[in-house]
Amino acid sequence: METVLTGITTTGTPHIGNYVGAIRPAIAASKRPGTRSFLFLADYHSLVKGRDPERLRRSTLEIAAAWLACGLDPEHVVFYRQSDVPEIMELNWILTCMTAKGLMNRAHAYKAAVAENEAAGDRDPDKGVTMGLFCYPILMAADILMFKTNKVPVGSDQIQHVEMARDIAQRFNHHYGELFVLPEAVVEEHTAILPGLDGRKMSKSYNNTIPLFAPRDELRKLIMKIKTNSQPPGEPKNPDESALFAIYRAFATPEETAAIRARYAEGIGWGEMKQILFEYIDAHLADARAEYERLIASPEEVERVLRKGAEKARAVSRPFLDEIRYAVGVRPLG
Amino acid sequence: METVLTGITTTGTPHIGNYVGAIRPAIAASKRPGTRSFLFLADYHSLVKGRDPERLRRSTLEIAAAWLACGLDPEHVVFYRQSDVPEIMELNWILTCMTAKGLMNRAHAYKAAVAENEAAGDRDPDKGVTMGLFCYPILMAADILMFKTNKVPVGSDQIQHVEMARDIAQRFNHHYGELFVLPEAVVEEHTAILPGLDGRKMSKSYNNTIPLFAPRDELRKLIMKIKTNSQPPGEPKNPDESALFAIYRAFATPEETAAIRARYAEGIGWGEMKQILFEYIDAHLADARAEYERLIASPEEVERVLRKGAEKARAVSRPFLDEIRYAVGVRPLG
Repeated sequence: METVLTGITTTGTPHIGNYVGAIRPAIAASKRPGTRSFLFLADYHSLVKGRDPERLRRSTLEIAAAWLACGLDPEHVVFYRQSDVPEIMELNWILTCMTAKGLMNRAHAYKAAVAENEAAGDRDPDKGVTMGLFCYPILMAADILMFKTNKVPVGSDQIQHVEMARDIAQRFNHHYGELFVLPEAVVEEHTAILPGLDGRKMSKSYNNTIPLFAPRDELRKLIMKIKTNSQPPGEPKNPDESALFAIYRAFATPEETAAIRARYAEGIGWGEMKQILFEYIDAHLADARAEYERLIASPEEVERVLRKGAEKARAVSRPFLDEIRYAVGVRPLG
Repeated sequence: METVLTGITTTGTPHIGNYVGAIRPAIAASKRPGTRSFLFLADYHSLVKGRDPERLRRSTLEIAAAWLACGLDPEHVVFYRQSDVPEIMELNWILTCMTAKGLMNRAHAYKAAVAENEAAGDRDPDKGVTMGLFCYPILMAADILMFKTNKVPVGSDQIQHVEMARDIAQRFNHHYGELFVLPEAVVEEHTAILPGLDGRKMSKSYNNTIPLFAPRDELRKLIMKIKTNSQPPGEPKNPDESALFAIYRAFATPEETAAIRARYAEGIGWGEMKQILFEYIDAHLADARAEYERLIASPEEVERVLRKGAEKARAVSRPFLDEIRYAVGVRPLG
């Protein structure tokens, strides 16, 4: 059995880029035999970035509902909210004491913030940097090590964090004994990156997203806005430069994709293609959207699922934290 | 009612300098009317400094037993072990996200470590610095803010940490609403500082201490080693330059102290003074030592006392953490 852990930050509303790039592959991976999947909503991580309480709650609900609606089976995986597992916070401190400050000085996100300050000519390179930003690779190490994770699927920007978790685990094991499993980053090379409305990568920060469960009307409106070039109907078009095609392909079967490719060669009009894409996504997501809407209207049901998941997670984290505490000397006296 | 909080680091064996400078005044203060005292064993803090698990356990037992033997009344105060209150670790992370890195850059202990590296000509100013050292003012803020502490009695080297806790609390309150009480440092101006065996301040780091509950034979041996000058018996001596006198005065009544001062003027011999000091301390501490030895032999009793204290502490920390979590957006979904 191999333990695979995936963290999901609870900021924003899930969009179809998240679905194609993260939700769908993670759910597929969780069904592979020989895999024990831990998936968690990283709500305490999200405090590093956002400070809007109601938005954090809302986003936690939306993201949990989205994963469940997309077919995540909470009976089969361990699906929990980080803040429901207090052992992680305790491990976070223990690991903090085992982490060299020099290691955090080299973290990409921190270095990027410093570089930005320096580029802006700020006298204080740490301007605007919180300790949350500086320390969060340690919290991420606690997330990973708490569950004896073997594999962490990540984007290439997150490889360093998994390596840091590994480094911290090695330091701990060297000093206190071999308690932690050394995790490995698994980089999903072929992760589909969807273009957004403007053709750039679909991303909350570009404000170019299509919400995964936008109501039908909104979905249509957004798809109609996707940027195209000015080629008229009838003129052959290059599908590989078309955002519409890229999005279609991310949802459709290879056969369907080939058929649309042929239509591009025949000079399909942008209006028709948008209509095809809209109908396709709308149909593809209809059942999941209905389930999503049902869950959003029953937040107590989502809460129940997450609490049950936390119990499963804590069945692992509680006894393991006891071992870790004992190893460092936080022991019953008697 | 005013809440007063005192943390006790669990490193080493308590010595008579700790007794006179910390244990005795804190116990006296805990009996003042209008005061609600929280006293805790800061075992998770001690991971910043030491990495010897068995020593940490032993030191926790010795220090808890010493405070109880010296008359701390666990029915009257809240006496607990930091690691038994997981809410503190969770608050620690929440505060981490509210703390500017610049604030930690200015912490004395961290700056001292950097200065030492620079003085040694090290290229890396953070050499040997752990994140535990860098972050511990935040954990201290969590310790303080968790219990709505009004006053924190500290040595002058700790004033900055209380100010940082205040700063972090203000930042939180400004952003999320007025949840935290702003703590104040109370500097004990007249804290007796005892000289050690070599005449310097009694301190574990100088290896010049007299253990508070040294067995009678060891106590005698150590007191006989206290440094004196070479003045012969019969020659008048200056009590204010004498370590023996300083230690005697810290234990004796003003009348007894005046009587010994007169003996110094008459030229008391060092041998006789050492004998007087030994008999005095031995008698003064005899009952407490017997109780200490009883407790050390009954670690499960000390454990029980600390667990009961943790229950009292958590009766405060649990509902307050719920409020804090709600404020930042870590909320039940339903």
